Amino acid sequence: MNLLITNAVLATLDEPQATNSDGSDYSLIYDGYLSVTDGIITGLGPMSVAPKANSASNVVNAEGKLLTPALIDCHTHIVHGGHRANEFELRLNGASYAEVAKAGGGIVSTVAATRNMSEKELVSAALPRVDALLSEGVSLIEIKSGYGLDVETELRMLRAGRAIADQRPVRVVTSFLGAHALPHEYKDDADKYIDDICIPAIQKGHAEGLIDAVDGFCETIAFNADQIERVFAAASALGLPVKLHAEQLSRYGGSLLAARFKALSVDHVEYANEEDARALSHSGTVAVLLPGAFYTLRETQQPPIDLFRQNGVPMALATDANPGSSPLTSLLLAMNMGCTLFRMTPAEALAGVTRNAAKALGLKDTGMLRPGMRADLALWNVTHPAELAYRVGFNPLSMRIFGGQII
Amino acid sequence: MNLLITNAVLATLDEPQATNSDGSDYSLIYDGYLSVTDGIITGLGPMSVAPKANSASNVVNAEGKLLTPALIDCHTHIVHGGHRANEFELRLNGASYAEVAKAGGGIVSTVAATRNMSEKELVSAALPRVDALLSEGVSLIEIKSGYGLDVETELRMLRAGRAIADQRPVRVVTSFLGAHALPHEYKDDADKYIDDICIPAIQKGHAEGLIDAVDGFCETIAFNADQIERVFAAASALGLPVKLHAEQLSRYGGSLLAARFKALSVDHVEYANEEDARALSHSGTVAVLLPGAFYTLRETQQPPIDLFRQNGVPMALATDANPGSSPLTSLLLAMNMGCTLFRMTPAEALAGVTRNAAKALGLKDTGMLRPGMRADLALWNVTHPAELAYRVGFNPLSMRIFGGQII
Ligand SMILES: [Zn+2]
Ligand SMILES: [Zn+2]
Repeated sequence: MNLLITNAVLATLDEPQATNSDGSDYSLIYDGYLSVTDGIITGLGPMSVAPKANSASNVVNAEGKLLTPALIDCHTHIVHGGHRANEFELRLNGASYAEVAKAGGGIVSTVAATRNMSEKELVSAALPRVDALLSEGVSLIEIKSGYGLDVETELRMLRAGRAIADQRPVRVVTSFLGAHALPHEYKDDADKYIDDICIPAIQKGHAEGLIDAVDGFCETIAFNADQIERVFAAASALGLPVKLHAEQLSRYGGSLLAARFKALSVDHVEYANEEDARALSHSGTVAVLLPGAFYTLRETQQPPIDLFRQNGVPMALATDANPGSSPLTSLLLAMNMGCTLFRMTPAEALAGVTRNAAKALGLKDTGMLRPGMRADLALWNVTHPAELAYRVGFNPLSMRIFGGQII
Repeated sequence: MNLLITNAVLATLDEPQATNSDGSDYSLIYDGYLSVTDGIITGLGPMSVAPKANSASNVVNAEGKLLTPALIDCHTHIVHGGHRANEFELRLNGASYAEVAKAGGGIVSTVAATRNMSEKELVSAALPRVDALLSEGVSLIEIKSGYGLDVETELRMLRAGRAIADQRPVRVVTSFLGAHALPHEYKDDADKYIDDICIPAIQKGHAEGLIDAVDGFCETIAFNADQIERVFAAASALGLPVKLHAEQLSRYGGSLLAARFKALSVDHVEYANEEDARALSHSGTVAVLLPGAFYTLRETQQPPIDLFRQNGVPMALATDANPGSSPLTSLLLAMNMGCTLFRMTPAEALAGVTRNAAKALGLKDTGMLRPGMRADLALWNVTHPAELAYRVGFNPLSMRIFGGQII
């Protein structure tokens, strides 16, 4: 045993009991212990049955603090060039969308900035944002490509994502998001863009081991379901799991398509309906809710939380950290927004950034406190887990443990 | 000269020029310097006219970073007992207001917790929240009483507020807020509460030097304008300035009353109308906007920003940090919310936490970069001030300078 945490309130987030289907269960153990060996949780339970520390053990007396699984941000665009503060300011000073576009704003500006940056520059630019997440107890970040829109830059973004895990004590999983937007070179020819760029990039990225999943943006302003289906087929042919930005601004068929491909997750899903919820439930797909984008875009259509609950669709929460529609780098704030804006419960919010976020990434070794899981943990200066979602813009992290190591 | 900052982008926030009445002016000096002697700004301008550093000078090369006045949080209830995470969770699990009240929730629970705490305990409980503000470049915090609702506890809260300035490098100004809510002892007898508690507490607190201004809550669920007027009269008799929580949930006459008393500020003011805006303009009263409460309560009535602009009413922004309706301890997030939810410009947001926040506190020695002002400064890892309001849940502070000292 390398590490023994004593006198903690454990929110294990282990699978809720059938009797707690309302999601209000954190699977709490008051006055508990947790032991770690070689980076893996080896035991947990009430202090009354805690093992004795041996001479090789580091003992952390939690003194009644809350211990949770480390947090997981399962949807980010955190690797990108530039920022869009100028565009934010122009809009608030009354500029129209056309005027913003004329001033070089919109996703085009992020694509241009990203294409101009080396892998090293992309990493450097992302690290302060990554550090903001880590400071709040995050130990696993999903990072998407999608601002290159050419083969080379898309793969460079993914390499930058992987490189972040070498620079910081964090685990990174990558998603290829070539089907994010149409670059000006392919204006009005989305199908040709998919043939020329997306599919070859998936194949090349996969050969390099850069891709953990394949993502897309299914929306009237992006790609339709038929186009996304061709991307998904290319992914499936290589054995890569898929996920999808779906039903964000309208109901456009993405959820049903994703369910057919047994997608890991569908993300945003404000406009999903009962048929979608039933299909997602069948396919075991997680609904990843992104309140930062809802807030920033001042949307009014809330995701159908009740339908997801009734149909047993697991809900995750993420920052969607991106320079345009969600310049959010606080997962705790995403939890608060999930509660305040979407009316999730604090327990659903915490499950959404731990157990269900792991599920959204297809990972079975993290997101809960359970023997055999990775010892990625967060210790908090609070006594009850509801406090994590309750506060707004406050970070009560006391200690982060990554792979059994105190950071 | 004790301190020379070189190669900075200075957002001086000095009074906007007549030609910039739209508030889009940060009064920027690119590639500038700022010099400090004995805690006071002694000079600033372009590097071309920067003074030579002498042997006693500490030189900070800002390397192109943004330098602003330190931030000012001009409306907080940061001293209080307990928290209300339990109530937050109950509501999100479907409890009615009556059920929450039955479970001991609401302001009553904060009053009970606050009454039970010593001055020292109140300070200890507040310090993590204060530290959250300071970490974002805040150097001046207004702190209200209002959870004691008896003479002793009200004054203890103010003493705790004053004591915070001894424990941290921060300046504190206090507001007496006895007329915040009616304690159960005075149920249905607000007038008697004002006679028995409020007015004697103002007199006693003033004699002890504990009160910088007198505040109240003018609302159907709190006190009416006649009752607040008696509180204000007691304050005026002692030469104390006044301010008021007004027009938050309905138009109830607080702004007009406050304007008659030449109040420093009216706060919330979502329901203020043109008559109110004209009166506030005449009296030189600042409108303090509190988007954290608007967000947390999911209000829909936005404060009349355009009326304030048209009538030249200065607008400030603050956290309203409190355990019930705004558990917000990030002034940067309040800036983002001011822009996103209220459609303020990033320049208005920055003026709202510097120049206009100082004005809301009646202070003439801070809130701008100008010779003669206190050297309370914030250096940021950004190059343009719009970035401060653009990001959500991100802290780009590089260095805080308090009274000329690097913190
Ligand atoms: Zn996204
Ligand atoms: Zn208040």
